[in-house]
Amino acid sequence: MYILIDGKKIASLIKKEIADEVTRLKNESRRAPHLAAILVGNDPSSETYVANKVKDCEEVGFLSTLLRFGNDITVPALLNEIDNLNKDTEVDGFIVQLPLPGHIPGSKVIESIDPAKDADGFHPVNIGRMVAGIPGFLPATPYGIVELLKRYDIETTGRNCVVIGRSNIVGRPVSILLSQKGMDATVTVVHSRSRNLRDIVRQAEIIIAAIGSPGFVTADMVSEGAVVIDVGTSRVPSSETSSGWRLAGDVDFDKVAPKCSYITPVPGGVGPMTRVALLRNTLMAARMRK
Amino acid sequence: MYILIDGKKIASLIKKEIADEVTRLKNESRRAPHLAAILVGNDPSSETYVANKVKDCEEVGFLSTLLRFGNDITVPALLNEIDNLNKDTEVDGFIVQLPLPGHIPGSKVIESIDPAKDADGFHPVNIGRMVAGIPGFLPATPYGIVELLKRYDIETTGRNCVVIGRSNIVGRPVSILLSQKGMDATVTVVHSRSRNLRDIVRQAEIIIAAIGSPGFVTADMVSEGAVVIDVGTSRVPSSETSSGWRLAGDVDFDKVAPKCSYITPVPGGVGPMTRVALLRNTLMAARMRK
Repeated sequence: MYILIDGKKIASLIKKEIADEVTRLKNESRRAPHLAAILVGNDPSSETYVANKVKDCEEVGFLSTLLRFGNDITVPALLNEIDNLNKDTEVDGFIVQLPLPGHIPGSKVIESIDPAKDADGFHPVNIGRMVAGIPGFLPATPYGIVELLKRYDIETTGRNCVVIGRSNIVGRPVSILLSQKGMDATVTVVHSRSRNLRDIVRQAEIIIAAIGSPGFVTADMVSEGAVVIDVGTSRVPSSETSSGWRLAGDVDFDKVAPKCSYITPVPGGVGPMTRVALLRNTLMAARMRK
Repeated sequence: MYILIDGKKIASLIKKEIADEVTRLKNESRRAPHLAAILVGNDPSSETYVANKVKDCEEVGFLSTLLRFGNDITVPALLNEIDNLNKDTEVDGFIVQLPLPGHIPGSKVIESIDPAKDADGFHPVNIGRMVAGIPGFLPATPYGIVELLKRYDIETTGRNCVVIGRSNIVGRPVSILLSQKGMDATVTVVHSRSRNLRDIVRQAEIIIAAIGSPGFVTADMVSEGAVVIDVGTSRVPSSETSSGWRLAGDVDFDKVAPKCSYITPVPGGVGPMTRVALLRNTLMAARMRK
């Protein structure tokens, strides 16, 4: 019998811990942590994501500010807004919601954020510090995965872990975190160019699936007793929902789950944890400023 | 019959390429690239390393400046010297020779170097950019390893590569580089906490040994036809040298070599390539400034 990793429950628990710390700060007459978000344009998904982030802030007692700009904002104007937030001592951390319109170079925008306020953990300085094992801001999904493993007391030391996917925001950073001192897993990163991918995954005691290909991980690729973390969140057509689609993970859950010791569902696994990461980084930023 | 990877020869070849580019720059009446080095104290190894770096600069036609300070230099005074080099438009790149005396925090010093002049590629911004796959400065040993594989046309795409060791300056960054688009290897990082380390290494088509333990990789750990890159440079006692010691790699060369398709010797393999990295980064810094 497998254990279903309940990301929603753990996310609630961590939000409660963060809310408790905000209460303590207020009792000491200190300002609540303050997260700002820049939203350019009106992409519907981005609107939803940012609205959720504001809601999360309210839930834990953070201050939040949403700055909205039209799709036609110039690069200098956007950089100027970022500079204002960098200088604003009332703001602890902020994000620029991605994706940005085509005329705005994303990497330039990210590098213009003060690394000490980089609540998304995307600035190269923060990635570099993470690689060096220096505690700091962590990107959302890798944080969520590591935290789920920790909260469920899942042993990683010396265990054979295979990460499927090498993206800059999930596969690569989580492979680094799991391999570092403290986590100590033996980590293999497989990707689209890997040969014998199925054989390699089959040897894994811990599988992190982060490719965005619905049902990619089938039962024959999973060994008995494996821990499976499913990062996939693809939209697939569905006749069973009013929206006409449903979220699908990278793992063929129904067939894979019976072989697992632990497995995350989609939705309700890694997803809720990624939202918590932003709160965690903002709280860390607020602590560093005080 | 194995092919011995000749790091000395490849290093000479690259130095020739760099020298040719310096000649071209001078023909266009442009200043030669200029590398500065800060040396604190008088550790004998550091003295040798820095002297070699200055010699390498002369060999390819670079300008070089050596700034020496006593072991008792204060942190603010050192940071001030770094700031001067950051601002000096006549200097393209510079390094602070490590290790530093105990009272000087190494990470603070590294982060105070302008990332655009960070010839060692140690600044977190440059590590972060490397992780993101953005072309830029590369740390010396990982650069040397990747370049040897490229110059010998050793196929890495889809091949099973095991990196032994997870250090911040060798194991970790080379594991990232080999796994990225373009190199496309399937990379596993093993380390002191890995279980079944020998079995995992035995499955490798490419082995990068970077643990600093003489003769750690024995013949039974190496499969027929493997490519073996030996990063180890431990000093071991020797009755055959006038100094009383010799350099020893991480690989039991005599027994392992007959099983290999390619193998690097120690010395004369990765070592000479690491010295070239500094020249390569300085040239890149000079190009970016022009």
